[in-house]
Amino acid sequence: MRAAGCPLCDGDGGQLVFRGDRFRVIRATEPGFPAFYRVIWTDHVSEFSDLAPADRALCMEAVACVERVVRQQLQPAKINLAALGNMVPHLHWHVIARFEWDSRFPAPVWAPAQREAPPQLLQGIESALPALDDALRAALAAGASNHRPS
Amino acid sequence: MRAAGCPLCDGDGGQLVFRGDRFRVIRATEPGFPAFYRVIWTDHVSEFSDLAPADRALCMEAVACVERVVRQQLQPAKINLAALGNMVPHLHWHVIARFEWDSRFPAPVWAPAQREAPPQLLQGIESALPALDDALRAALAAGASNHRPS
Repeated sequence: MRAAGCPLCDGDGGQLVFRGDRFRVIRATEPGFPAFYRVIWTDHVSEFSDLAPADRALCMEAVACVERVVRQQLQPAKINLAALGNMVPHLHWHVIARFEWDSRFPAPVWAPAQREAPPQLLQGIESALPALDDALRAALAAGASNHRPS
Repeated sequence: MRAAGCPLCDGDGGQLVFRGDRFRVIRATEPGFPAFYRVIWTDHVSEFSDLAPADRALCMEAVACVERVVRQQLQPAKINLAALGNMVPHLHWHVIARFEWDSRFPAPVWAPAQREAPPQLLQGIESALPALDDALRAALAAGASNHRPS
């Protein structure tokens, strides 16, 4: 199921980390938030409740997998999860590592900036991304094979 | 599992709609967003990935149930789902009905206001809340009995 003109049907929507049959995981380019991933459902569905229960479970186990690996690799202060889609109504989950020093913490990333994030701390996260992406690929590949319906 | 000083361990955190063993659903008081619900996990856990897979499925089926009933009753432009918890790190899911006329659409509810929501449209949603709460209670009670582990 694809929708004409949908940017998440027409393209990956970011730096591809993992592509499965039902979903993919990309790393987004969101200034100030280097560890910002998205779990993007392959089919064009608008709302989470449009999925069948088994697909919802598969989707959320992928979200939890990304969350778990990000926590292991970066020890963020908090993980933020969100499925909004007001502008691109194609189901995608934001998985965002938050740090006490980031520009919005403890407000959501969509709130106005409260401070400038220290560049050396941002750079520390950025330098950890290749290993994080590798760990995500490995964990998602293992999970995808576990979860594929028999 | 409770945490000292946690407002979601010490209180309901809003207008109680449904209380199950593992989670409750409340309606929040967020000015400009009358149809703003939260699914709050009973145990004090901070991150979604702290839950066991069966508990994650139970939690997200509750989120999907709230979403489905809100869609049926209000036909919003979009549903927004989020688990942030930067300020209150006790797992809770926001389920928010969004309308094209609301004060932030299509931005997230945490972004700056773009306009004033028309009072008569807000009031229309508010007048639908008692029936919506009843429908939520009925759907969640049916779902909870389905999902309780045997």
